[in-house]
Amino acid sequence: MTPAVSPAHTVLFEAKARKGISFEQIGKAIGRDEVWVASAFYGQAKFNEEELKKLSEVLEISSAQIVKELGDQWFPNRGLGPVPPSDPVIYRLFEGVLVYGHPIKAIIHEKFGDGIMSMIDCNINVERKPDPKGDRVVVTFDGKFLPYSKW
Amino acid sequence: MTPAVSPAHTVLFEAKARKGISFEQIGKAIGRDEVWVASAFYGQAKFNEEELKKLSEVLEISSAQIVKELGDQWFPNRGLGPVPPSDPVIYRLFEGVLVYGHPIKAIIHEKFGDGIMSMIDCNINVERKPDPKGDRVVVTFDGKFLPYSKW
Amino acid sequence: MTPAVSPAHTVLFEAKARKGISFEQIGKAIGRDEVWVASAFYGQAKFNEEELKKLSEVLEISSAQIVKELGDQWFPNRGLGPVPPSDPVIYRLFEGVLVYGHPIKAIIHEKFGDGIMSMIDCNINVERKPDPKGDRVVVTFDGKFLPYSKW
Amino acid sequence: MTPAVSPAHTVLFEAKARKGISFEQIGKAIGRDEVWVASAFYGQAKFNEEELKKLSEVLEISSAQIVKELGDQWFPNRGLGPVPPSDPVIYRLFEGVLVYGHPIKAIIHEKFGDGIMSMIDCNINVERKPDPKGDRVVVTFDGKFLPYSKW
Amino acid sequence: MTPAVSPAHTVLFEAKARKGISFEQIGKAIGRDEVWVASAFYGQAKFNEEELKKLSEVLEISSAQIVKELGDQWFPNRGLGPVPPSDPVIYRLFEGVLVYGHPIKAIIHEKFGDGIMSMIDCNINVERKPDPKGDRVVVTFDGKFLPYSKW
Amino acid sequence: MTPAVSPAHTVLFEAKARKGISFEQIGKAIGRDEVWVASAFYGQAKFNEEELKKLSEVLEISSAQIVKELGDQWFPNRGLGPVPPSDPVIYRLFEGVLVYGHPIKAIIHEKFGDGIMSMIDCNINVERKPDPKGDRVVVTFDGKFLPYSKW
Amino acid sequence: MTPAVSPAHTVLFEAKARKGISFEQIGKAIGRDEVWVASAFYGQAKFNEEELKKLSEVLEISSAQIVKELGDQWFPNRGLGPVPPSDPVIYRLFEGVLVYGHPIKAIIHEKFGDGIMSMIDCNINVERKPDPKGDRVVVTFDGKFLPYSKW
Amino acid sequence: MTPAVSPAHTVLFEAKARKGISFEQIGKAIGRDEVWVASAFYGQAKFNEEELKKLSEVLEISSAQIVKELGDQWFPNRGLGPVPPSDPVIYRLFEGVLVYGHPIKAIIHEKFGDGIMSMIDCNINVERKPDPKGDRVVVTFDGKFLPYSKW
Amino acid sequence: MTPAVSPAHTVLFEAKARKGISFEQIGKAIGRDEVWVASAFYGQAKFNEEELKKLSEVLEISSAQIVKELGDQWFPNRGLGPVPPSDPVIYRLFEGVLVYGHPIKAIIHEKFGDGIMSMIDCNINVERKPDPKGDRVVVTFDGKFLPYSKW
Amino acid sequence: MTPAVSPAHTVLFEAKARKGISFEQIGKAIGRDEVWVASAFYGQAKFNEEELKKLSEVLEISSAQIVKELGDQWFPNRGLGPVPPSDPVIYRLFEGVLVYGHPIKAIIHEKFGDGIMSMIDCNINVERKPDPKGDRVVVTFDGKFLPYSKW
Repeated sequence: MTPAVSPAHTVLFEAKARKGISFEQIGKAIGRDEVWVASAFYGQAKFNEEELKKLSEVLEISSAQIVKELGDQWFPNRGLGPVPPSDPVIYRLFEGVLVYGHPIKAIIHEKFGDGIMSMIDCNINVERKPDPKGDRVVVTFDGKFLPYSKW
Repeated sequence: MTPAVSPAHTVLFEAKARKGISFEQIGKAIGRDEVWVASAFYGQAKFNEEELKKLSEVLEISSAQIVKELGDQWFPNRGLGPVPPSDPVIYRLFEGVLVYGHPIKAIIHEKFGDGIMSMIDCNINVERKPDPKGDRVVVTFDGKFLPYSKW
Repeated sequence: MTPAVSPAHTVLFEAKARKGISFEQIGKAIGRDEVWVASAFYGQAKFNEEELKKLSEVLEISSAQIVKELGDQWFPNRGLGPVPPSDPVIYRLFEGVLVYGHPIKAIIHEKFGDGIMSMIDCNINVERKPDPKGDRVVVTFDGKFLPYSKW
Repeated sequence: MTPAVSPAHTVLFEAKARKGISFEQIGKAIGRDEVWVASAFYGQAKFNEEELKKLSEVLEISSAQIVKELGDQWFPNRGLGPVPPSDPVIYRLFEGVLVYGHPIKAIIHEKFGDGIMSMIDCNINVERKPDPKGDRVVVTFDGKFLPYSKW
Repeated sequence: MTPAVSPAHTVLFEAKARKGISFEQIGKAIGRDEVWVASAFYGQAKFNEEELKKLSEVLEISSAQIVKELGDQWFPNRGLGPVPPSDPVIYRLFEGVLVYGHPIKAIIHEKFGDGIMSMIDCNINVERKPDPKGDRVVVTFDGKFLPYSKW
Repeated sequence: MTPAVSPAHTVLFEAKARKGISFEQIGKAIGRDEVWVASAFYGQAKFNEEELKKLSEVLEISSAQIVKELGDQWFPNRGLGPVPPSDPVIYRLFEGVLVYGHPIKAIIHEKFGDGIMSMIDCNINVERKPDPKGDRVVVTFDGKFLPYSKW
Repeated sequence: MTPAVSPAHTVLFEAKARKGISFEQIGKAIGRDEVWVASAFYGQAKFNEEELKKLSEVLEISSAQIVKELGDQWFPNRGLGPVPPSDPVIYRLFEGVLVYGHPIKAIIHEKFGDGIMSMIDCNINVERKPDPKGDRVVVTFDGKFLPYSKW
Repeated sequence: MTPAVSPAHTVLFEAKARKGISFEQIGKAIGRDEVWVASAFYGQAKFNEEELKKLSEVLEISSAQIVKELGDQWFPNRGLGPVPPSDPVIYRLFEGVLVYGHPIKAIIHEKFGDGIMSMIDCNINVERKPDPKGDRVVVTFDGKFLPYSKW
Repeated sequence: MTPAVSPAHTVLFEAKARKGISFEQIGKAIGRDEVWVASAFYGQAKFNEEELKKLSEVLEISSAQIVKELGDQWFPNRGLGPVPPSDPVIYRLFEGVLVYGHPIKAIIHEKFGDGIMSMIDCNINVERKPDPKGDRVVVTFDGKFLPYSKW
Repeated sequence: MTPAVSPAHTVLFEAKARKGISFEQIGKAIGRDEVWVASAFYGQAKFNEEELKKLSEVLEISSAQIVKELGDQWFPNRGLGPVPPSDPVIYRLFEGVLVYGHPIKAIIHEKFGDGIMSMIDCNINVERKPDPKGDRVVVTFDGKFLPYSKW
């Protein structure tokens, strides 16, 4: 697995493995989607204090310690290399950008005008879609359109 | 706009501009989704002969010429740089891979086991979702799960 | 100067040189800030049809031609290399990111929480500030704060 | 967070977290702007001896130790990678250089002639500007203009 | 040798060296091809629990420990750098891609149409072929053809 | 398609397209394997004079011209970028090196000792293997083992 | 030689070759140092109008044309790649930075404190120093010291 | 500061800091220029045994130890990254190469013919030149001219 | 073949092909080694006027033209990419540097002390050495040792 | 010096320094050329068991330990970065490839036809050649010619 971002995140991954539970189960326990929870485990999102407390319960780890290390004064330093990704799962997403990036941009322009899909106000989901020819992975990016300002 | 992949693709883009129509309209005329059509315009997918003929009708260009240049002996050389993308629309998708790549991979593993989402047997859609706080772009990757072979 | 993004942009630069006017003068004529106008000359922003018409007047170029080439079907492919910039003026801004990027990020987090300054809804200004020890350049980025979504 | 530049800087970050205070509060205590203070915490600027002593008071750390480690014989080795930045907050500033670098350079040339904005004699500020449509981040670079010498 | 992917993989390599056995012998013991076994030692494939148990027997290591570390919650993060490879054995394969990549692609297109050879559903073998002029290495990639979807 | 290496190679590709024949058919006509013929079309191998003459017959092009341009004084400058490959067909082969390079190297060492598989004295084949679950691509590298010299 | 920065610069180089004169001779004619003149020929500095007129005399080229192309609306886009330099003359200067960069920085800090040598207000000279063991090249950078601002 | 090249070099830096002396003072004590001494501290030059002994006296460190670690069997592995330099002091020198490299090369060719300035037989000095408009840094490279051999 | 450095060099290559002669033959005609002659054809060395005249005779090209284009005012801009080389012949030399660079450096230090082998005062030869097990290529670099100066 | 490839190689370097002997002396003791011995010390070649035993004698280290660590199950992972080399000694060899790579390739083709000089079956020597104008380093690569196979 990828090296965790901080010792505190290593504690989270080890506790998850010890409990043998999934991100989906953790997500249900703290009231968040599984992709968001995984992002926070990889240091790509920030738990608030209430979430950290629920998390310490479901993972049976010290609440005080995790709040101290991932609380108010900690914030994410996002982005996990390498570029391009060497892992095939992540590379396929990257290949999606290489091959379909310009076409997606063209369609966004036709449907919205000059602007972008926000990757900050963006929710990401991963679903398993049953299919007799082989089940499918459905990854959805649902982000706010932001028009370019003119001044 | 991005330089077209070949003179034949330049012809397509110029005809589209001259007619003033959208990829959605072209897609309806030839029976394909707009994202796929845009991909083929950017040289990232291959029209078959029937599609090339319909295309020449809707764009009012020479059918013989386009079939000669983009027909049987032509095939796509996929991937449009640069890496990382300098354009903000495409960069945001790339940032999605940088920030959410490992979390998405983790969820795929939990839901499917060791394998990947195919970017070959993958359909991509871009929708405009109305939202009172600002309409949203919804980009969906729907790809077949491929388990790693063992031998 | 940097190679223009398209033949149409070359026409703009040549007309500006022929007329011997500044971006500030063009900006006043079309009702936009000079930095924004320069951005559009470099293909980093999009004139609407009304702006293109005013522009053709002030530059004494063909309105029909420029609307045809930079009108509805054209959209910007943003980002002008190289990275890192070799030009000292642009490198100094880049050095600002290298040296002060983490400090600025830390202050944004302290003042706003987990989120970013938008570079899409962002107005940029360049002013000359008189100073007896040598006049100063004041570059201001004024961008909307975007909080990270949680889902 | 970014790995600190030296063990002495780690001591500063840990003391700041333990005290639970902001760069703004530290800045007021030692008579410096918050962005400059953050820069010095990240090893991008140099505290003088008097500042180190005030700092040790406000952070309740050993003055002798910090003066020994960050005093006369220490000097900054500036610049914190990676390039391009993977973190979205810092990337947005970098995108500002990619997209608006040439336009800003053009305006500087029109207003000042052939020269640069100094990034050495440059003060940087980050302000929160209230706005009913969403508060804004205002980042200002205020640097001396330096004309190119001829000889 | 290449640094192992995790402490658990180091344990595997050390046990293999201590026992003085080959990947072929290990492969026979656990019912897998030697190339696949080597891949799993380098963290590029995933042993299932039954394989881990057989492995612990043949290597005389703790079954409980290896199942704990490489069991359900562990999954491969594939891809071992550097790119391009500096080692001559691996570089020669890379040179095969540089020199023969486009020709192989052209033949695949002629024999199958627009699509790829899967590197996920792909079995790899390495054989020693006796030859009086010097024995030969025969490396075979046997991967499923995946046609590009259209939608 | 990839830009041809020289004007002479463009002539070959255009003639092949005009005749509508495959590399396999050309290979049969000149007595070479189809992968080798494709390599020579991409400028990665060198036709001798006899092969150039047969080639000019099968493609119905000027023998004198092609011998003049690709004859004695021409030799290949091998290797076609980019690295890493952006095209998915070629990337999959590259991924094979990334993921299976070290394992293949380990097996070569166990079977042969310290040395390499030659990519100079190496024959490459691409076959279509029928399979009820989907036909398979079989790519074979058959290269001489070269032991490292000691001196 | 390096490709000139613009057609106007090519005109300068061609006229210099036609006249068979040195940068030193041109420098004397227009009242500038030879290194500065060479810089301006390579597009790394800007002639003012008076210099352009003297230059057109000494080179016997059209004054009107050169003033039109390199006059008021033209400004340098500095920096000539590649990095690292492949040419041995330029590489040796680059090697000077690689090997002696940190030592030079350390001495600057000891002699001046925290700041830099300006490369904007910097005069560069190249002299030939006779030496019985082989004449020497003396390259001098004479730049203003700029102390880091604090705010 | 830059990480020292070896533990022995760390000892040197720490002793220098403890004594609170400058490279100039050390240089005088051992009979070498301060830039050369700094180079040797950064592992970019080699002290001979006599210099190591004088150095151990002036720094009050163990002579035997330093001779053992940096004596006969040690030699420099020169060059300190990164490229391009992120530190502004070193970057300015690098910018000198980017901007003035081709001009300097042109002048060397005019004054000496086809050859280079040696960076091996090259003495480097850094001086502080008083100037009422602000003191100046004068960096001099004095290297032997080496003509290209022909054979 | 590699694109020639200038139109004048293309003329040389085309004349050589037309005459059907080798670099060895040209070398004999002008009194230089074949490797040096090939270097000059690739723009990596400079013919003097006498050599250019002899060259124009042996190649039957215009002496006046070649002297005008490659005479006094022309000088080499050395170094032909890419790095790392994609061509296998050149890559093998590069691999020699990767694999044997440190060992060669160590032996130079043991035999000469701290210094380098000059690549400026260096003669390079390529010989064919008959060998019953397969003829061998012998490439020799014979360069002056340059000791590091101390000052 | 370069970091050793493994702890076992560090033991070799330390023993060599303790004994104060040269690679030439070690080479004579074990019956190998000094360059080959240095290569093996840097992990770029493989000692056989007999050589390891002789080596342990001449270096006075534990034979059992070194055979255990560098014996049968160890094999070299060749190639020592960085690229391009920062050290001037190694860079000069690299510059030889940059400047003389294409000329050497051209001569190999003229003397042997389409093929390469093997870097696997290649012996490398470094000699000191006395010369009144300064002794010279002679580096020789003596490698088998390998013709390209056709199939």
